[in-house]
Amino acid sequence: MQDSARRGQGRALYDELRARMADGTYGPGAALPSTRALAGERGLSRTTVSLVYEQLAADGFLDTRPGAASRVAASALPPAKAGHGGPLQAGPRPVDRLSAIGTRMAALDLHHLASEVPDEIDFLYGPLAGRDFPTGAWLKALRSVERQHGARLDYEDPRGNLALRKALQKHLSQTRGLSCSVDQLMIVSGSQQALDLCARLLLDPGDPVVVENPGYRMAHHVFEGCGARLQCVDVDAQGLCTDQLAGIAQARLIYVTPTHQFPLGGFLPIGRRRSLLDWAAERGAWVIEDDYDSEYRYAVRPEAPLQSLDLHGRVIHVGTFSKTLSPQLRLGYMVLPPQLVPAFATAKRLADRHANTGLQRALALLLEDGSHDRHVRRIRRLQQARQRVLLDTLAAQLGPRVVVEGAASGLHVVAWLPGLAPAQEPALVALALRQKVRVHPVSPLFHPAGPAAARQRRPAGLVMGYALLTLAQIEEGVKRLAAVVRRLEPEAGWGRIF
Amino acid sequence: MQDSARRGQGRALYDELRARMADGTYGPGAALPSTRALAGERGLSRTTVSLVYEQLAADGFLDTRPGAASRVAASALPPAKAGHGGPLQAGPRPVDRLSAIGTRMAALDLHHLASEVPDEIDFLYGPLAGRDFPTGAWLKALRSVERQHGARLDYEDPRGNLALRKALQKHLSQTRGLSCSVDQLMIVSGSQQALDLCARLLLDPGDPVVVENPGYRMAHHVFEGCGARLQCVDVDAQGLCTDQLAGIAQARLIYVTPTHQFPLGGFLPIGRRRSLLDWAAERGAWVIEDDYDSEYRYAVRPEAPLQSLDLHGRVIHVGTFSKTLSPQLRLGYMVLPPQLVPAFATAKRLADRHANTGLQRALALLLEDGSHDRHVRRIRRLQQARQRVLLDTLAAQLGPRVVVEGAASGLHVVAWLPGLAPAQEPALVALALRQKVRVHPVSPLFHPAGPAAARQRRPAGLVMGYALLTLAQIEEGVKRLAAVVRRLEPEAGWGRIF
Repeated sequence: MQDSARRGQGRALYDELRARMADGTYGPGAALPSTRALAGERGLSRTTVSLVYEQLAADGFLDTRPGAASRVAASALPPAKAGHGGPLQAGPRPVDRLSAIGTRMAALDLHHLASEVPDEIDFLYGPLAGRDFPTGAWLKALRSVERQHGARLDYEDPRGNLALRKALQKHLSQTRGLSCSVDQLMIVSGSQQALDLCARLLLDPGDPVVVENPGYRMAHHVFEGCGARLQCVDVDAQGLCTDQLAGIAQARLIYVTPTHQFPLGGFLPIGRRRSLLDWAAERGAWVIEDDYDSEYRYAVRPEAPLQSLDLHGRVIHVGTFSKTLSPQLRLGYMVLPPQLVPAFATAKRLADRHANTGLQRALALLLEDGSHDRHVRRIRRLQQARQRVLLDTLAAQLGPRVVVEGAASGLHVVAWLPGLAPAQEPALVALALRQKVRVHPVSPLFHPAGPAAARQRRPAGLVMGYALLTLAQIEEGVKRLAAVVRRLEPEAGWGRIF
Repeated sequence: MQDSARRGQGRALYDELRARMADGTYGPGAALPSTRALAGERGLSRTTVSLVYEQLAADGFLDTRPGAASRVAASALPPAKAGHGGPLQAGPRPVDRLSAIGTRMAALDLHHLASEVPDEIDFLYGPLAGRDFPTGAWLKALRSVERQHGARLDYEDPRGNLALRKALQKHLSQTRGLSCSVDQLMIVSGSQQALDLCARLLLDPGDPVVVENPGYRMAHHVFEGCGARLQCVDVDAQGLCTDQLAGIAQARLIYVTPTHQFPLGGFLPIGRRRSLLDWAAERGAWVIEDDYDSEYRYAVRPEAPLQSLDLHGRVIHVGTFSKTLSPQLRLGYMVLPPQLVPAFATAKRLADRHANTGLQRALALLLEDGSHDRHVRRIRRLQQARQRVLLDTLAAQLGPRVVVEGAASGLHVVAWLPGLAPAQEPALVALALRQKVRVHPVSPLFHPAGPAAARQRRPAGLVMGYALLTLAQIEEGVKRLAAVVRRLEPEAGWGRIF
């Protein structure tokens, strides 16, 4: 007989005996027929019946003893209590039973995921184009690592695969002038996990945290999820306005994007960097330096990070492969001050053990054999060309009606529209969508509880990403957008707000 | 000129100008030479010098104005304050600045990662053998998904890739009789992340949590990391002793391994399952059902999970691919009560956005085309054969000196040694290691704060995993181990403690 047929018969018998226990035919203590008798009665092999009895015993429904009849276990079916089969409202409402963190998460209304609409030109910042991914090199690396499994597929160091950390250490030294030991490096599931670990390990509910405004909202959410109180600091063309820090007496943490402020694009100059670090040292605040797109500096190579100016071991440097390879890869890294390593390694281990080993080993190969560098050089040229077309077309189409900020690096610029007020952004978005162009206003990146003045002194603005688009799409998209902007600013003598 | 050579010259000039600003040669407000003059002086192209000036301006070190000399920015170098270059002790000691969670993490002394020693026979439970991994099928799936990237590499649904969730829904229905909607399924980075998310979203500091003792220590650590108070409940051959639950008036959460209690291996019978669910419903407690190795039932198929008996929407079912594919894959799943989905999806998104897309799509293919099922059938036979050799050799070598528990399923058994006391476990481990056999005692899996009686009424015991070993290694390892056990029990009339 086929194994599967026998399993089917065994399963049917198992279910039937369970049903008879449930309906009371075989009550607790009742003896079951012998395997021989039942096999004969049902036309089954005795092996099948024995296996079913063994399984019922293993599952706790039968007591079996060599030489004695198998009996239904006393614990198999306790008397049912009143209210058993009750509906959901029998207990306290489960959503009332969330933790303080859970309650905040349940209340958080994150924007829905943007979906791709065919024929639409989307200036979304964040995603990369599938056609830019180095599929050949990546598949070669995956093949190579998958064919060389270790003898033992075991949990790894929570800080990540050692080969990757070594390759990354060298990479960061060469590309960022960042010097750290392999021990300080921790591979995380994207920079988002780095922020989350920082929030959990460094923030207690009620702690003050300084953030850029406008800024990276996913960071704001993480800190607020932990119960932190956010203190918004303004941003100008040179990044965080560090002169405002003096008025902040206490902070547990400050989160900054000094290489390319998100979203406005400023580069924090050395003077502000020193002010920020001094302020943090005086207050004993931790500094998260989110270096999310430093690969895309289009002129000279990027300036040394805050981490290398830090004399007090307070800077946590965070980076990602989401901007060079793919956001779907979920690989990023942290450079930790040495004294924080034990707590973070433990937390990472308890959070999810470690990042996927195969992906880490493949990425290590890409860094070691130079294909990551080659890819970055190639994609940097592509992105720069896209940016150029974006800037040229904006200038040609809108002239002084547009002021672009943050074009020195990265994968997006901010296009301010001095003739439009922030309140006109929704109309701009809606009118552009009718032309199958999707644009993304700056306003949602301001913290809703931050000072209204920060938002109101600026005109309408758009965060314009170009990584997804072809040169032709960028040109066409800007032309359609410009027509919409001109429609919203119909007067020849349009007034400049900015 | 090569791009790289020009970049090198530009970089050198950039560094030199920065150094001159730092040493005061060019103080704030000082005019720099014109690009033409400096280019002539240095024998550089004017383009190179212009790029350097632009970069210095972008970095905030220079103020540039069309038609005017570039000047060192006022903010480029603030006067240094006293104590700037101070050593690490200048600020508060950073480890004093951890959150309550961070402080607990830093204090937690997790066992070090087990390393692989050549020639050693290691009965470690947890890892899988590299040779058992379905490399061919996995690589084929990876190739297939990597060659079909979407046009847009974007962040995905935090609950995971839809194709995988659909395939998993079908898989769970077929293999576990578990019925849920695709919306209730969330892909996580291994079951560890499921536990971590539950702890954060469901537990406030001080909340009582019921756990099995002995039990899965990584779960204990996660709950304690969130500040929960653990209530230990004993375990017998049928899993959790649910009769002890009546004495526990309050609990926010209960964590159980009902299909195959870890580590003792009991299967929780239906009576206890009902008692547990009733108790949880009465107290409004959440139930985590960790279904970590249900694929390895060696007789009939596994019994229906707690999740399918749950009438009150309180059970969170957790599973993993760590036991069928690889612990290094970091893919697991949760089946959530519908009302918990929004909070968990938000938390997952803030924690790390979502699991790696490529891995999820590859796993979906393996589930869809039947190769995962084929692999499980194959590896189940292999594991069962290993278990059989383990049990046979233990019986042949040690006879009544060993009592095996938990062999109905899974990838490990517990071998109790009734002639040895728990205090002799370290000696047993040390003596075995001299014979190049590594064994792992049960004692560390008891909660150190749990009742001492729970541990003391049992003899010495070993958690014996067999997934890593060949049949020959198992046989040889048990023979060496048996010699050590006999040495520790030298008397002919050895006394049974158990």
